Amino acid sequence: MKQTNLFTKTLHDAPKDETARNAQLLIRAGFVHKEMAGVYDLLPLGLRVVENIKQIVREEMEGIGATELLMSSMQNKNIWTCTDRWDDKIVDVWFKSKLHAGGEVGFGWSHEEPITHMMTNHIASYKDLPVYVYQFQNKLRNELRAKAGVMRGREFLMKDMYSYSADKETHEKFYEAAKEAYVRVFARLGLGSDTFVTFANGGAFTKFSHEFQTICSAGEDVVYINREKGIAINEEVLNDETLNELGVTKSELEKVVTAEVGNIFNFGTEKCEQMDLYFTNSEGEKTPAFLGSYGIGITRLLGVIAEKFSDENGLVWPENIAPFSVHLISINADTEGQNLYDQLQKKGVSVLWDNRDARAGQKFADSDLIGIPHRVVISPKTIEQGGLEIKMRSQAETTIVSIDDFIKSLVQ
Amino acid sequence: MKQTNLFTKTLHDAPKDETARNAQLLIRAGFVHKEMAGVYDLLPLGLRVVENIKQIVREEMEGIGATELLMSSMQNKNIWTCTDRWDDKIVDVWFKSKLHAGGEVGFGWSHEEPITHMMTNHIASYKDLPVYVYQFQNKLRNELRAKAGVMRGREFLMKDMYSYSADKETHEKFYEAAKEAYVRVFARLGLGSDTFVTFANGGAFTKFSHEFQTICSAGEDVVYINREKGIAINEEVLNDETLNELGVTKSELEKVVTAEVGNIFNFGTEKCEQMDLYFTNSEGEKTPAFLGSYGIGITRLLGVIAEKFSDENGLVWPENIAPFSVHLISINADTEGQNLYDQLQKKGVSVLWDNRDARAGQKFADSDLIGIPHRVVISPKTIEQGGLEIKMRSQAETTIVSIDDFIKSLVQ
Repeated sequence: MKQTNLFTKTLHDAPKDETARNAQLLIRAGFVHKEMAGVYDLLPLGLRVVENIKQIVREEMEGIGATELLMSSMQNKNIWTCTDRWDDKIVDVWFKSKLHAGGEVGFGWSHEEPITHMMTNHIASYKDLPVYVYQFQNKLRNELRAKAGVMRGREFLMKDMYSYSADKETHEKFYEAAKEAYVRVFARLGLGSDTFVTFANGGAFTKFSHEFQTICSAGEDVVYINREKGIAINEEVLNDETLNELGVTKSELEKVVTAEVGNIFNFGTEKCEQMDLYFTNSEGEKTPAFLGSYGIGITRLLGVIAEKFSDENGLVWPENIAPFSVHLISINADTEGQNLYDQLQKKGVSVLWDNRDARAGQKFADSDLIGIPHRVVISPKTIEQGGLEIKMRSQAETTIVSIDDFIKSLVQ
Repeated sequence: MKQTNLFTKTLHDAPKDETARNAQLLIRAGFVHKEMAGVYDLLPLGLRVVENIKQIVREEMEGIGATELLMSSMQNKNIWTCTDRWDDKIVDVWFKSKLHAGGEVGFGWSHEEPITHMMTNHIASYKDLPVYVYQFQNKLRNELRAKAGVMRGREFLMKDMYSYSADKETHEKFYEAAKEAYVRVFARLGLGSDTFVTFANGGAFTKFSHEFQTICSAGEDVVYINREKGIAINEEVLNDETLNELGVTKSELEKVVTAEVGNIFNFGTEKCEQMDLYFTNSEGEKTPAFLGSYGIGITRLLGVIAEKFSDENGLVWPENIAPFSVHLISINADTEGQNLYDQLQKKGVSVLWDNRDARAGQKFADSDLIGIPHRVVISPKTIEQGGLEIKMRSQAETTIVSIDDFIKSLVQ
């Protein structure tokens, strides 16, 4: 893409009311626009990063046999009354509105009830199970406070997955497969070494749920970790009983501030009982399905990554999710720039070409702020020195490489 | 995909309260689930079709230089008061809710105001123009009635594009380019010969807007067309003045019932004046930008295509947007089916394999209902006859083709 076609301008300052570092950087670099507190638009650069994150998540969910669908945002009151969760005293984040046609409607803050209700149309026999489905859905939550930038929005994108199984064994096998898929997702996002499968509050069916907590000073959780033993415990369940069960003492644990980037939850058969999702098992008996629920905060990840992969000059995107792979900057070398841009495009390299009529200093500062992994400069000076100046955003050194060698070095 | 991994079951009957043929078919075949009146979930087959429609639209919008972004669903009251359109008396389809943090929030029924407001951050000089952006956004509208199935939902997916131009000439040039891109979109969707660029009500700036109206008995509009002259007039502007201006008489026109699948609207400078989107032109003067707005109803198209491409046995998807290209049906030939499925997958053919333990009659009926373009049957009988039985969903004849010839006939 030519930068002259990218309408967003970098901004020297973030809005005054924006206190979160992730949102300040993402706004200044033109990745998001703040619509109101806790609500952000995805501008072209931000949308590209989010689509890259989604694609990694999608591949891993498809890899364990889940199928994508998309539930509506508008939700039916009757479905939520089955579990008492329509009640504002029980769920305090509902946005609701009145239908002109009569009655009330809710806007989806979660989809466990609607998906489970929908499944009653499709699951009747053990032969119909298991079913694994997921979606990327915009969640709307009436949060009292929204101060963590895109890490905790009133509107945010989530991947939510649901497993329906006929028996405990199948159920637990998928639960483990999902846990492993999540580990792969966070590794691919560059968060592997700082993300911990964390014991947290369970529900009626299991003592613990599993959260995926990433060390991040802007996070809202406190977790106690032991890196050697690979143990992490949310402070909400840190007690003698838990320590005993996990075979670790408090003195062996390190206290860290984290952001919850994923969670997996075992409902057992409770939710399906409430929602009347029963099937006929192989003995001809009516029995409720086992439900697991598996979330990943997609736009929260955008925020966490912006917090963790940035320096005083701006964002430093990991290669896997960067909006572009190469930031080509031409300085007084329009023809050579166009030539190189065309060659890179032909090779299938994702490239943003700063073809603007602007000062070199401005171009370099914007490039640092936007944070594309490979910066490639072409100018009369670099040509005289033998070709292009290459610099990784994450490193200080620059090197001069001939145009031919650079093109050859690219994966087709 | 193996059909045993597709959780959706075909249904003999649609829900009793569903009167629209498009929704009846899409529900029965497992493409959508009805959440409530005017609100549908996209099940895996439906999501695949919608993604295919989106991809065609995306390619054509990128082709005329537009860039994708994604605005939020939650909207700021202050932005809409600039144009008086927060007022329920002026816009009667708002869903609004109260924020726990205080104040009101609206849910996006349109994005003209928020996008234009956001652009004031990025457009300051004539050098920043033109800007062309588009999105695929879920719109929420509090419609009093919702009886046309997915053709007119309370929640629906729309592609909306916006052009900001410095002068009338650039503005009109893009308006024409968008019109031509729209013609290409509808041609690629298989609706070309039944879709007409239609003169309709304009606004303050222009006498007419342009609607794209597709002949469809389930539609809500009435249009007068002359196929030879390529003229179409919405009945709302059918008067002597219009006829005169377009050089056609009423007797030359054919009255048809249509569905509006797209519209393009010329705001001139009016909206930018209201929203304070002024830029400094090359003479150093402050001047408002020209705005064009360009919509395509993505989920409406799903409905229109279901209405138009279907017969008494079910859906008949055009190749370009079908959920899969090939419906492979194995009957008492699991090993041969698996083999062929693997080969097709390796060739990159999108294939749904009916590997279910079900009667042949059930499989054929489901295949007709789902409507994948190419049906390929493998059974001991077809093998004895020389290979596979091939049938197009849109045609009655079957032919026997050897497996080798079939594989060779496929695009790589």
